[in-house]
Amino acid sequence: MAQKQVSIREIAELSGVSVATVSRVINNNGRFSETTRQKVMAVIREQGYETNAMAKGLRMRKSNTVGIVVPDLNNSFFADLVEKIEQQLFETGYSTIICDTARDPYKEAGYLKMLEAKLVDGLIVISGLKEFDSQQLSRHVPIVCIDRKPNTNKIKYIGSDHYKGAQLATEKLISAKTNPVLLAGSRDSPSLIDRIKGYQDTLSKNELPADNTSVIRLTEEEEQTPDTRRSALREILRKLMTKSQPPIGIFAVSDTLAADVLIAAHSMFISVPSDLKVIGFDDAPIARYCYPELTTIRQNTDEIAVRATSYLVSAIQGKTEQNSSINKLVDVSLVNRSTV
Amino acid sequence: MAQKQVSIREIAELSGVSVATVSRVINNNGRFSETTRQKVMAVIREQGYETNAMAKGLRMRKSNTVGIVVPDLNNSFFADLVEKIEQQLFETGYSTIICDTARDPYKEAGYLKMLEAKLVDGLIVISGLKEFDSQQLSRHVPIVCIDRKPNTNKIKYIGSDHYKGAQLATEKLISAKTNPVLLAGSRDSPSLIDRIKGYQDTLSKNELPADNTSVIRLTEEEEQTPDTRRSALREILRKLMTKSQPPIGIFAVSDTLAADVLIAAHSMFISVPSDLKVIGFDDAPIARYCYPELTTIRQNTDEIAVRATSYLVSAIQGKTEQNSSINKLVDVSLVNRSTV
Repeated sequence: MAQKQVSIREIAELSGVSVATVSRVINNNGRFSETTRQKVMAVIREQGYETNAMAKGLRMRKSNTVGIVVPDLNNSFFADLVEKIEQQLFETGYSTIICDTARDPYKEAGYLKMLEAKLVDGLIVISGLKEFDSQQLSRHVPIVCIDRKPNTNKIKYIGSDHYKGAQLATEKLISAKTNPVLLAGSRDSPSLIDRIKGYQDTLSKNELPADNTSVIRLTEEEEQTPDTRRSALREILRKLMTKSQPPIGIFAVSDTLAADVLIAAHSMFISVPSDLKVIGFDDAPIARYCYPELTTIRQNTDEIAVRATSYLVSAIQGKTEQNSSINKLVDVSLVNRSTV
Repeated sequence: MAQKQVSIREIAELSGVSVATVSRVINNNGRFSETTRQKVMAVIREQGYETNAMAKGLRMRKSNTVGIVVPDLNNSFFADLVEKIEQQLFETGYSTIICDTARDPYKEAGYLKMLEAKLVDGLIVISGLKEFDSQQLSRHVPIVCIDRKPNTNKIKYIGSDHYKGAQLATEKLISAKTNPVLLAGSRDSPSLIDRIKGYQDTLSKNELPADNTSVIRLTEEEEQTPDTRRSALREILRKLMTKSQPPIGIFAVSDTLAADVLIAAHSMFISVPSDLKVIGFDDAPIARYCYPELTTIRQNTDEIAVRATSYLVSAIQGKTEQNSSINKLVDVSLVNRSTV
């Protein structure tokens, strides 16, 4: 991908070294000092010089590190996914720099700049409200977005089939004789939009009203701490129990939220699953610590990690990914445990 | 801290630039190209040249990044601590590179090398079995060890008062009319040793036998997955219920382990806290997701994060930390919830 046609001779002149030296640096072949390498590399970067062979050579002297930008390591789904990606990358010979943005766009911009300065060979961007804007980066590196829409189709998108997951969850709750509501946090995201659509389409298909009142969102204030979340959820449960006959069915769009619903229900002596049926999303580690253990939609984090890593490494190594399955959504499945 | 006496003139000669340019680079003052800066910095690093003024100047051009080495982001205690440190560092103007070693010494060595190559200004090393060996690093950077013993007293150690925490937990279980056993995983660590000692001393003080059979350890194989852990814990609970009259008291040395005990107990229809009393350690986020919510020993992660960050940043900026409280252990406290 030649950005500008600069000859190796010009690179040599600008670096103040011989053509042979530039060639050795590019091909990582023979003797040269670190000073020389940095000098040559700086000129190459300044000039935006790149050819396939060169790209390959440069890569051999690149950092062998990949940056991961993640919104919240305290969310066990993200922590699990990041650990799996890190493991895959490590086995492929790459070190992983993990950056936690706390869902703060300003922090995200800062970390992207930092990762660029550290010369990462590639980037994995996980989740996020807005489209990922590759213009934030000043040089070209391969990028994979997981559950985050990129602003250009040059960036690979990998994500679960959130729509299908919501269908499975909703059908499960309908077949358990509930008229399910969907419960979500305050933040919008492309995956949430897909899940809401899957839920609503499934209601319609089953001739149940898909009105707005069946989508319940926590406010930002309510979701602030475990205590505010649970107090809001108790209020929601109280209303649902007043409005409808048990069993109540709740499709919580994350396992963390479902876990909070269960805690709130326990404190109100609501019996799960007889009076309240709950289904989560993710099959994050927390799902196995809920009581009763959480019925949920499993996102295949192993598969997501493998796809993200293999695509990114291929792109870093300049190989075109021929496997078209890479463009398909990652399949999800229902995990039957004890809350429905 | 001069490592070798190399003059600024020699640096200039070796870099092929003027003394004035070297000075401008060092003081980040005036015009020079990125190429020149890299050239000069490379020579400076090669020659190990450093004076106080220079160190300050270099620092101004340093990376403003700090590396955190953490054993397992899937452990909610570590994830929480890392997020808090990251937040503190970000507010102080530093970006954080997080590296997950999966408790693998080989991976740890790799990440330390990578962090050095990225020119981090400082390092925070969290937990770990063996002493942290600063000889793994080839240049001097300020380091803080959290719950990990350093191999030299030049490295700052910060940790909770694990001994006191174990005393509090043990006393609580004794006052709840149990003869408590201590339950731990397979891995040894300095903090575990302190906790076991606090537990055993408290038993002795209360004239209860502190024999080895009251310390139960899971094997590496048993703790592999949630399922193997829980099956091992069911077996342990079965034996304890056969051997003694309820209530049984278990001091689990982490909240994760305590959460697994509760899940195992539920599956055996053992009633908590009437027949089984459980106390954890950490007050990690998982403690609030247990059912019943977990009584535990709170590690003050806010305080640990503040101390680690303020010490590290002072050291990076070449200030001597005068506050002697920095050497005291971080206090712990008992959080009464519903499992005792």
